[in-house]
Amino acid sequence: MTKWVYTFGAGKSEGDASLRNLLGGKGANLAEMSNLGLPVPPGFTLTTDVCTAYYDNDHRYPEELELQVKSALAQIEALTEKRFGDKHNPLLVSVRSGARASMPGMMDTVLNLGLNDETVAGLAKLSEDARFAYDSYRRFIQMYSDVVMGVDHHSFEEILEDAKLEKGVTLDTELDADDWKALVKDYLELTKRETGKDFPQNPIDQLWGAISAVFGSWMTKRAITYRRLHDIPGQWGTAVNIQSMVFGNMGEGSATGVAFTRDPSTGDKSYYGEFLINAQGEDVVAGIRTPQYLTKQAREMAGADDISMEEAMPKAFTELAAVFERLEAHYREMQDIEFTVENGTLWMLQTRTGKRTAKSALKIAVDMVDEGLINEDEALMRVEPQGLDQLLHPTLDPDAPRKVIARGLPASPGAASGEVVFNADEAENRAKMGHSVILVRTETSPEDIHGMHAAEGILTARGGMTSHAAVVARGMGRACVAGAGSVRISYEKAEFTTAGVTIKAGEIITIDGSSGEIMQGSVDTIQPELTGDFGTLMAWADKKRRMGVRANAEIPEDAKVARNFGAEGIGLCRTEHMFFDAKRILAVREMIVAKDENGRRKALGKLLPEQRKDFVELFHIMKGLPVTIRLLDPPLHEFLPHEDAEIEEVAKAANVTVETLKRRIAELEESNPMLGHRGCRLGITYPEIYEMQARAIFEAAANVAKETGEHVVPEIMIPLAATKAEIDFLKERIDGVAVAVMNETEVEMDYSIGTMIELPRAALQAGEIAQSAEFFSFGTNDLTQTTFGISRDDAARFLWIYQERGILDSDPFVTIDREGVGQLVRMGAERGRAVRANLKLGICGEHGGDPASIDFCEEVGLDYVSCSPFRVPIARLAAAQAVLKRGAD
Amino acid sequence: MTKWVYTFGAGKSEGDASLRNLLGGKGANLAEMSNLGLPVPPGFTLTTDVCTAYYDNDHRYPEELELQVKSALAQIEALTEKRFGDKHNPLLVSVRSGARASMPGMMDTVLNLGLNDETVAGLAKLSEDARFAYDSYRRFIQMYSDVVMGVDHHSFEEILEDAKLEKGVTLDTELDADDWKALVKDYLELTKRETGKDFPQNPIDQLWGAISAVFGSWMTKRAITYRRLHDIPGQWGTAVNIQSMVFGNMGEGSATGVAFTRDPSTGDKSYYGEFLINAQGEDVVAGIRTPQYLTKQAREMAGADDISMEEAMPKAFTELAAVFERLEAHYREMQDIEFTVENGTLWMLQTRTGKRTAKSALKIAVDMVDEGLINEDEALMRVEPQGLDQLLHPTLDPDAPRKVIARGLPASPGAASGEVVFNADEAENRAKMGHSVILVRTETSPEDIHGMHAAEGILTARGGMTSHAAVVARGMGRACVAGAGSVRISYEKAEFTTAGVTIKAGEIITIDGSSGEIMQGSVDTIQPELTGDFGTLMAWADKKRRMGVRANAEIPEDAKVARNFGAEGIGLCRTEHMFFDAKRILAVREMIVAKDENGRRKALGKLLPEQRKDFVELFHIMKGLPVTIRLLDPPLHEFLPHEDAEIEEVAKAANVTVETLKRRIAELEESNPMLGHRGCRLGITYPEIYEMQARAIFEAAANVAKETGEHVVPEIMIPLAATKAEIDFLKERIDGVAVAVMNETEVEMDYSIGTMIELPRAALQAGEIAQSAEFFSFGTNDLTQTTFGISRDDAARFLWIYQERGILDSDPFVTIDREGVGQLVRMGAERGRAVRANLKLGICGEHGGDPASIDFCEEVGLDYVSCSPFRVPIARLAAAQAVLKRGAD
Repeated sequence: MTKWVYTFGAGKSEGDASLRNLLGGKGANLAEMSNLGLPVPPGFTLTTDVCTAYYDNDHRYPEELELQVKSALAQIEALTEKRFGDKHNPLLVSVRSGARASMPGMMDTVLNLGLNDETVAGLAKLSEDARFAYDSYRRFIQMYSDVVMGVDHHSFEEILEDAKLEKGVTLDTELDADDWKALVKDYLELTKRETGKDFPQNPIDQLWGAISAVFGSWMTKRAITYRRLHDIPGQWGTAVNIQSMVFGNMGEGSATGVAFTRDPSTGDKSYYGEFLINAQGEDVVAGIRTPQYLTKQAREMAGADDISMEEAMPKAFTELAAVFERLEAHYREMQDIEFTVENGTLWMLQTRTGKRTAKSALKIAVDMVDEGLINEDEALMRVEPQGLDQLLHPTLDPDAPRKVIARGLPASPGAASGEVVFNADEAENRAKMGHSVILVRTETSPEDIHGMHAAEGILTARGGMTSHAAVVARGMGRACVAGAGSVRISYEKAEFTTAGVTIKAGEIITIDGSSGEIMQGSVDTIQPELTGDFGTLMAWADKKRRMGVRANAEIPEDAKVARNFGAEGIGLCRTEHMFFDAKRILAVREMIVAKDENGRRKALGKLLPEQRKDFVELFHIMKGLPVTIRLLDPPLHEFLPHEDAEIEEVAKAANVTVETLKRRIAELEESNPMLGHRGCRLGITYPEIYEMQARAIFEAAANVAKETGEHVVPEIMIPLAATKAEIDFLKERIDGVAVAVMNETEVEMDYSIGTMIELPRAALQAGEIAQSAEFFSFGTNDLTQTTFGISRDDAARFLWIYQERGILDSDPFVTIDREGVGQLVRMGAERGRAVRANLKLGICGEHGGDPASIDFCEEVGLDYVSCSPFRVPIARLAAAQAVLKRGAD
Repeated sequence: MTKWVYTFGAGKSEGDASLRNLLGGKGANLAEMSNLGLPVPPGFTLTTDVCTAYYDNDHRYPEELELQVKSALAQIEALTEKRFGDKHNPLLVSVRSGARASMPGMMDTVLNLGLNDETVAGLAKLSEDARFAYDSYRRFIQMYSDVVMGVDHHSFEEILEDAKLEKGVTLDTELDADDWKALVKDYLELTKRETGKDFPQNPIDQLWGAISAVFGSWMTKRAITYRRLHDIPGQWGTAVNIQSMVFGNMGEGSATGVAFTRDPSTGDKSYYGEFLINAQGEDVVAGIRTPQYLTKQAREMAGADDISMEEAMPKAFTELAAVFERLEAHYREMQDIEFTVENGTLWMLQTRTGKRTAKSALKIAVDMVDEGLINEDEALMRVEPQGLDQLLHPTLDPDAPRKVIARGLPASPGAASGEVVFNADEAENRAKMGHSVILVRTETSPEDIHGMHAAEGILTARGGMTSHAAVVARGMGRACVAGAGSVRISYEKAEFTTAGVTIKAGEIITIDGSSGEIMQGSVDTIQPELTGDFGTLMAWADKKRRMGVRANAEIPEDAKVARNFGAEGIGLCRTEHMFFDAKRILAVREMIVAKDENGRRKALGKLLPEQRKDFVELFHIMKGLPVTIRLLDPPLHEFLPHEDAEIEEVAKAANVTVETLKRRIAELEESNPMLGHRGCRLGITYPEIYEMQARAIFEAAANVAKETGEHVVPEIMIPLAATKAEIDFLKERIDGVAVAVMNETEVEMDYSIGTMIELPRAALQAGEIAQSAEFFSFGTNDLTQTTFGISRDDAARFLWIYQERGILDSDPFVTIDREGVGQLVRMGAERGRAVRANLKLGICGEHGGDPASIDFCEEVGLDYVSCSPFRVPIARLAAAQAVLKRGAD
C-alpha cells in the first residue's frame, strides 16, 4: 500500500529532511526538527505524490488517502489530547502548501481550521477569552472563504470597516467579543450570499476543502507561469502540511516571531529577528504593530524602548537560543525560523536555509570554515558569484528616500549620482573641475570612451545588456543603466524628458546600475569595503579552479584594476579603443580618407609610435602574463564624424574637401555594420593596417624584453575569421613583420597567432582553421548575434517580450544559450582540438563573466575565461564552483 | 622503365583518347585520330608525368627521357623521310603545350622548329620557294626568341615595320625573299643583342629549349593564378606535343582552316568554318586577310564572292567532310577541328569538343538523340543549365556597335534599352504612356516594386547579387545591373554621372544584365525564341529528376510565368510584397503608428480583404499545386516614409501629428535591420498581424475550394525562427484561426505549418523545431548572411577582393558554401528528418536557382528547390543532371 501521509511531532516523525522531494521543503524540515526533539506542534504531511496522483486521475484522490488522513488526525488528537470538532476541547489545525522549491503564486495558509459555530464556544471557554475565540473564528471564515470558496477578501474587510465606523473606533483592538460575534454572523451571511452555499460547519469537510484548495492552486495560471519561468516541472507537485494550531495571541505569555541564526545583512554571528507579544504570525507581517527585538543587545544598539524577547520571556528565549545552536550545528547552515510561544511554551513552526546579502554570505561562509562547521569546498559553494558584484561597487542606501523617474536595463552594477551631461567632452571637462557627472546619451560609441571614463555613471536611452555602453561601462567599473526606452533626449535643448519630468544639463540624477532605476536628485550611496574574508575565499577558489581567468582590458588603468582583482592575463585587448585619443583619431581619419595605399601607410606611420607606446605600457603592467591583442575590428565608418560642423573640422584637418569627406562617409555607410566590412576583412582589404599593428606589438615586446629582461609573449588575435584562408593570408604578413622586427631589434621573440571564433562558419570550420590558428578565443557576443540572428543593439525591443511570453528563459547575451550557441562552441572546441591537441581555448565575450556561462566553459573544457576587470572575482569563484559541481556529480 | 614518350602518326599510335590525363587533351586526341586512320602529321607526346618529375626533381628531366625523345624523333624521320637538321631535306616540327584541361596563360606554340641558317636554304630549294623559306625562318626566330628566350615580340615587329617603311610598302606580302633574308639577319642580331646569346643553330638544342619553355610556362604566375581560380591542381602538369610541320602556305594548292562539325551558333547540322588558301594557321587568326567559307552553300547564303573550299579544293573538301562524319560518329559530340592542306594533301592538326552557344547546345543535344548518336541522359548532360538563361531573355546583338560607360554586377540576365528614370512612380507613368524605361536607383526597396515591374531594366549603384534589386528583378525577369560603383546618382539634378559622362533623365541607355555592361544610347537586341527542342529537353529532365521545382512568386503575373516555365508550385510567396500597393500601404502605416493593439486590429481589418484577394488569385493560378506562404518578414520601418514631404503626407493620411510619426520612425530605426525586429519576432510581438494573414489565407482557400471544387492546401511558413517555442507560440494562434474559419465557412481544410530554416540556431535545433514544424524551407540567403556574418547589402565592397585574393572561390550568395552553410543545411535536414520522417524539405534562397547549389540539394536529399520564375527551367535541368551525376558515381 502506498504511503501517502507522513506524521510528525512529539520527538519522532515518519519523514526527515532527506525526503524533501516527497514532503516538500516545509514538511521535510518539520519532520526533521521533530526528529531532533525540537518542539514542533504535531501534524502530518500529504505527499507530493498525492498531488501528482490527483492530477493524473482526473482530480480524484487515491483510495487509501482518506483512511490515512483519518489515522494521522487521530494521532494528532492523541498527542494534543484534543479532538477535531469537539465542542468542549476542539483540535484546530493549520493547512499549508509546501512544494519542493519555494513557490509564490500558490495557496499559502489557512489557519484555525476546525472552528465552527459550536467549537468556537468551546475555544472561548477553554481559553477563557471569548474575544480571542471569535476573532479567531472570523479570521478563519475570511481566510477559508477567500482561498477555498473564492470570496474576495475585500468584501470582508468592508464589513469590518463598516462595523468600526458604526462603533466610532479605528483599530481592530477596540472591538470586543460581542462585536466579533456579530461580525462572524455577517461574514457567514456574506459567504452564503456570494457562493450560494453555507459555510461548511463540519471540520472534516473544512479539512478536505482546504486540501483540495492547496492542490488546486498548483495549477493556477500564476503558478504555471512561475514554474515555466523558473524551470520547475509540473510533475513535481506540492505537498500539504496539516498541523495542530498553537496560538501566539493567547495573552501576554504568548508571542510569535521570525528569526535568523545569524545576521542576514552583515553575516555577524548574532541572533537576528523580531517578535510580537500576544500576536499571530500574520500580525508580524502586517506591520500594524512595530515588532520588538529578540536580544537585549540588538534592542540597545537600535536605541529601542520596547522590551526584547530576551528580557520579556527569558525562559522561552533561552530555549529558542538553544534551538538556534542545535539547528545550525545540524544543518551546518544559517537558518531562517518561525516560532510561536503559547502560554510560555516555545513551538517551532518552520526552519529553512536563510536568504542573505552577498556580504553576509561571504562572512558566514568564511566564519563557518573557521568554526569547523563546513570545509572550504562547501564554503565556496555557499557564495553566489554574481553577488560579489555588490561588494565591489557602491550601492544605494536602502533607507534613503528616492524618486524613481525611469527604468532601464541594469547594465553595469553600482550606484552613482552626478550632474547630467550630454556629451563626452563636457563630461571630461566637468570631471576635471571636480564635479561628479552622469553621461546621458541615446547610445554611446567608441568616440565617447574618454567621457565614459570621466563619468561616475552612464545612462543610455537605447541598447541592450551588451550594447557598447554596457560593455565598456562594465569594463571600467562604471555604473550604467542602458536602454531606458522612456527617456527622450534632446541634445539641442540639452535636456531629457521621461514620465513627464524634464531634466536639464547640470541637474543631479542618480542611477542604480544594479536595478536599472533612474532617480531625480541625489540618493545616498554606501561605499563598498573589501574585507579579509574576500581574499580568503578568493584564495580558496584559486586553489580549486582549473580554468584561468583573464580580463578584457586595454586602458592601463583598467589593466591595473584587473591585476588587482587577480586577472592572470589579458584575454582581449581591443586595439580600436586606442584609436580615439584626440591626437590619434586625426591620423586614423587621415588613413580612412587617403586615396591609396601610400596615403594610408603615411597616416599609419603616425599611429605606429602611439600604438607601440600602448603596448609597452600594457606589457609592463602585465609583467610577463599573457596578453591577447585583437587587431582592428570595427568598421572604419565608426571613426568618422557624422555632424556637419565636425565634418568640416575633420576635412580641414585631413586636408581634403568637405565634399570628398562626405563622399567617403557615404561610401562607407553600411546597412548592417555588424555584418559589414570589419574584423579581418579590414586586414585583408588594407593589409597595411594590420602590418602597422603587428609592428607596434613586436617592437613593444622587444623594447620591454630589453628593458626588463622579462619574456613577453604576445598573442595576436585575428577577429571575425570565417575561413582558414583568411588566417593564412594574414598570418603570412604578420610573420613577415615579426621576422623584420626581430632582425632590426636583434631580439628573439615568441608569439602566437590565433583567432576569434565568433561566426557560426568559424565554429563549423574549426578543424580547418586550427591548422593555421594557434589559439581560439570564443567571441560569444558576436557568435550569439549571428547564431540567433539578433543584433544586440536592437534586441532590447523584443527580447523582453520573448522572456515575458516564456519563449526565452534568459537573455542569451547574458547567459550563453547552451542549445544553440553552446553547440557551436563545443563543436569549435572539439574540432579544433582534434586537429591541434594543444590548441589554447578561451572565451572573451561578455559570457566570460557570467557564472552559468562559466560553468558551461568548464564543461566544454576551455582553458580560460576572460571578462571585464570588475567581473574577475566573480569568474574566479564561478570557475571554482564549476569544478566542484562536476566533482560532486 | 617508365614510358615518358608516346608516338603517333601513320595510322597507329602508342596512346589514345582515354589517356587524356597522361597525354593532355591535344596529345590524346592526336593519338586517337591517328588510330582512326585519319591523316595526322607524325609526332610524339612527352607525358604530363615528365612535367611532374621535372618539378619534383629540381628542374631535371628523368634520365631515360633523352633516349626516348631521340628514338621518337627517329620514328618521325622515318615516316616523313626527312631528317632533323638535314641541310637538304630538313625535318621541321611544331612544339605545343597540352594540359589535361584547356589552360590559357601557358606557352602555346613554336612553329617551324628545326630551321637554321643552313636548313633554311634546304627548305628553299625543296619547296622551290625562297620567299616561303625565309618567311618561315623569320617567323620561327621571332616565336622562339619570344617564348623561349624572353625577347619582347614587339621589337621584331618594329624592325619589320621599319623595313616596310624603308621599302615604301604596307603589306607583308609585298616583301620578297631578299627582304626576308635581310630581316632574318636583323632578327638574329636583335636576339643576340637582347639576350647576349647567339640564337641556337642546333635543332636539338632548339627542341630542348622549346620543351623546357613549355614546362616552365606551367609555373608562371598567370598559369598558377588561372589554376587556382579554376581549381586545377598543380600536380596535373602539362604534356608537350612535338609534331612534324605541314605547310598551308606552300602555294595555291595549300591552305589552312578551322571548322566545326555543326554550327556552334545555331546548332544546325551543317559544316561551319573558315579557311585561307596559301596561309599558316596564325594568318586565319590574325584577321589580316578575310577567311573564306568552307561550303558553297554557306558562301552563297552570306553573299560572299571569295570561293569556298568546297569549290576551290573539291578533293580535299570531300576528304575533310568524311573526317567530320567520322569524328562525330566516333566522339558522339560536335567537334572543333584544325586542319591544313599541303599541296593538295589534307592533314588534321587538332580535334576537340566544340564550344557552343546555349541555343546551339540545346539543338545539338536534341538532334543527336534523334540521330541515335546519344541517349536522352547524355543529352541532358550536354546542356549547361545556366546557359538556358540566354534563351529566355533578349540579348544584345553581338554585331551592334556600343559605347560602354560603366560596369556593374550581372544581376539579372537580359538586355534592355530605355529612357532613364529615377523614381518608381515616374517609371510607371512613362511606361503607361508606352515608353520603354530603365529605372536607375542608388538601391531599391520594396516601395519601388511597381516601378521595377513597369521598367524594362533596373540599374543600381549599390548592392550585390542578392540585393533587393537583383532578387526582385530576377523574379520578374527584368534585366538588372546592380552595384555599379562608378555610377553617381543625383536625384535632385535628375541625372547620373559615370566615367565623365552625364546622363540626364529621359536620355536612352542600354543595360546588359548578363554581362553587367551599361551603354549610352540604344543598342540593338535580339529577342529570344523558344523552340520545340526546349520543351523536349525539359520533358526529359522532368522524367529524370527526383526533386520538385517550385517558384518564388507572389504577383499573379509572376506566378503565371512560373507555371508556364513548369513550376510545380510556389515555394515562397513573400506576403510583404503585397503590402506596397498604394491603397494598402496606407493601412499598413496606420497599423504601424497605432497606439495599441485595438488600433492595429482596426488597420489590419482594412488589409484583410486585400490579402484575401491576393491569395484567392494565387490559388486560382496554381490550381491545387502547393503554395507556401511566408508570413510578414521585413522590419516594420521598411514600410515607413523617410523624406519630409512624404512624412507629412503620411501623417495626415494616418491622422497623427508629424511629430508622432517621426518619433515612431525613430523608435523603429535599427542598427542592423537584418538582425532586428523582423520575421516571426513581429508575429510574437504583434500576434494580430499573423492572425490577420492566417485568416486571409484560410478564407481564400475556403473560397477557392467552394468555387472550384479543388482541394487547396496552403503551407503557412513562419520566418526567422530560432527556437521551437516561437513555432509553438504562433502555431497555436494560427490553428485557432483555422478552426474559426472552418466553422464560419463550413469548409474542411488541410493545411500545414512549417518554418524557414535561415538562422544557424534553427539548423542546430532542427530536431526540436521539427517536433512542431511540418516542413522546412532553407532560407539560404539569410543563412549565408548569418553563418558567414556578411550582410549581402554590404558585401559587394569586399567580396571581390576576397575572390581576387583567392580567399573565396565564389560568391557564397550565388553558389552555396558547402563547407559552412552547407554543413548547417545538411545538419538541419538530418536532424529534422530524424524526428519527423516525412518532414518536407525545400530551399527558397537564391541558391534554389543555381545549378551547383541544386546539385548540393540533391546530395542532401531535399524534396524540392524553389527559385525565381525565370530560373525554373534552369532548375529543372540542373535537378536532372544532379540525379544523373549521382547515378554515374
